[in-house]
Amino acid sequence: MKLLRYGPPGQEKPGLLDADGQIRDLSGTVPDIAGAVLSPDGLARLAALDAASLPLVGGSPRLGPPVSGMKNFVCIGLNYADHAAETGASIPKEPIIFLKSLGALQGPNDQVELPKASTKTDWEVELAIIIGQKAKYVPENKAMEYVAGYAVCNDVSEREFQIERGGTWDKGKGHDTFGPLGPWLVTRDEVPDPQNLSMFCEVDGQRYQDGSTRTMIFGVAKLVSYVSHFMTLHPGDVITTGTPPGVGMGQKPPVFLKEGQTIRLGIEGLGEQQQVTVRAEF
Amino acid sequence: MKLLRYGPPGQEKPGLLDADGQIRDLSGTVPDIAGAVLSPDGLARLAALDAASLPLVGGSPRLGPPVSGMKNFVCIGLNYADHAAETGASIPKEPIIFLKSLGALQGPNDQVELPKASTKTDWEVELAIIIGQKAKYVPENKAMEYVAGYAVCNDVSEREFQIERGGTWDKGKGHDTFGPLGPWLVTRDEVPDPQNLSMFCEVDGQRYQDGSTRTMIFGVAKLVSYVSHFMTLHPGDVITTGTPPGVGMGQKPPVFLKEGQTIRLGIEGLGEQQQVTVRAEF
Repeated sequence: MKLLRYGPPGQEKPGLLDADGQIRDLSGTVPDIAGAVLSPDGLARLAALDAASLPLVGGSPRLGPPVSGMKNFVCIGLNYADHAAETGASIPKEPIIFLKSLGALQGPNDQVELPKASTKTDWEVELAIIIGQKAKYVPENKAMEYVAGYAVCNDVSEREFQIERGGTWDKGKGHDTFGPLGPWLVTRDEVPDPQNLSMFCEVDGQRYQDGSTRTMIFGVAKLVSYVSHFMTLHPGDVITTGTPPGVGMGQKPPVFLKEGQTIRLGIEGLGEQQQVTVRAEF
Repeated sequence: MKLLRYGPPGQEKPGLLDADGQIRDLSGTVPDIAGAVLSPDGLARLAALDAASLPLVGGSPRLGPPVSGMKNFVCIGLNYADHAAETGASIPKEPIIFLKSLGALQGPNDQVELPKASTKTDWEVELAIIIGQKAKYVPENKAMEYVAGYAVCNDVSEREFQIERGGTWDKGKGHDTFGPLGPWLVTRDEVPDPQNLSMFCEVDGQRYQDGSTRTMIFGVAKLVSYVSHFMTLHPGDVITTGTPPGVGMGQKPPVFLKEGQTIRLGIEGLGEQQQVTVRAEF
């Protein structure tokens, strides 16, 4: 099942993508793609619906982030062996956790802002895990039960703010628009092996990232379990799981985003995003 | 004006503390202490009310965190010159930013959990800034206009998770119960000089922290402006501004929290908190 939220920012309605790739409205069925709707029972109720009986949504509405009401936008750093090598970092012994401001969350095809005075804004295609139920001290062998599904995430990053301005990485990860998520949440049952998905990111048609979740250091079950030992995860929370090689910072010489460029990224089975870059004005 | 939220967790109602120290119910006036209620206009409307005409709340209800609906629980690290010295760190050139999980937020007198297997849970009394309106690229000389008020915060921290487990400090700051806030939001007009407030923290009656916001490295206006250049701040967002000397990690030898202890902390004019420590069970 592919769940989504469509409509203007802040006024999104819940929907699903039917077998023909058309949006069906869910607002008569659930208030939002959030909370208990993401639990195993909530998803089972949606899966039991006859999609053809739901109102068809015409046109090509904007898509918002496919979930709402999150408390944590957790990011995992340096989680691909080949990306760690690219940045000159050693392989982490344990997952590296940082947090993105919830204000950074946005729809998959919304514009991405380059912060004022930024010269090092960079892309990162990532597999995002979406949590379906409260997870605290979850053992690794039960962790998948807490996963509602997956989505594509662009963990947009300002490298100067992240690395050269002191303190933690959070400083370079939380600008408005730095968290495009979607186009949809693909439920776990449709992704039998999350550790074998090809993924890519292109800027103006040039492919920079061309990887696979196969080279992740810590996999989905491990990450859900691990994070749940440090902070409780809630329905709609996101863990975005790190990026494969090919970020701008890793190019020789480094390449960063400029205004008016188009970023396109995607993951096998999870769909694609496309963003145009603009300069932040206010 | 002292604004608060009272009632069981997740079901808090808005209220204010009247001149006699009694709680008056605001639920007939505003939906919550959140969003536009925290704007200059929203606060002016509350200030114009005759408190004596509002329903008196009897008994001693539990207090929740005094604001709701936040997107960012921002923390500033090593922001007191004397605390930086205590931890052996050098004075930061720019503010150190990290983020607390929103799930850590709780009422001022709720129990504080020691995470499973934690041996290094520590206290930090801090002046929390509460944001009143959307702040993005705010200059320092306008920054105070974006401050709704202040509250006491205990930035509870697990030092092993924070420092010894790799990655950013976020890992040691986000456990459930690690963000007691309150007892109330004291509006900015009642705190003419936020850089001259005495503050303390005691454990089982022994005073460990006895400081003043006077020794802050980066003051309130600077911090609001600075953070707003990296992530947009929204009404109800919190910036907790760092802690003075006397944390457990800084004792010789270090002292950390054990089960069944009582933490009491407060800031001049902003009230006091009191928490009992318990071991996390699930």
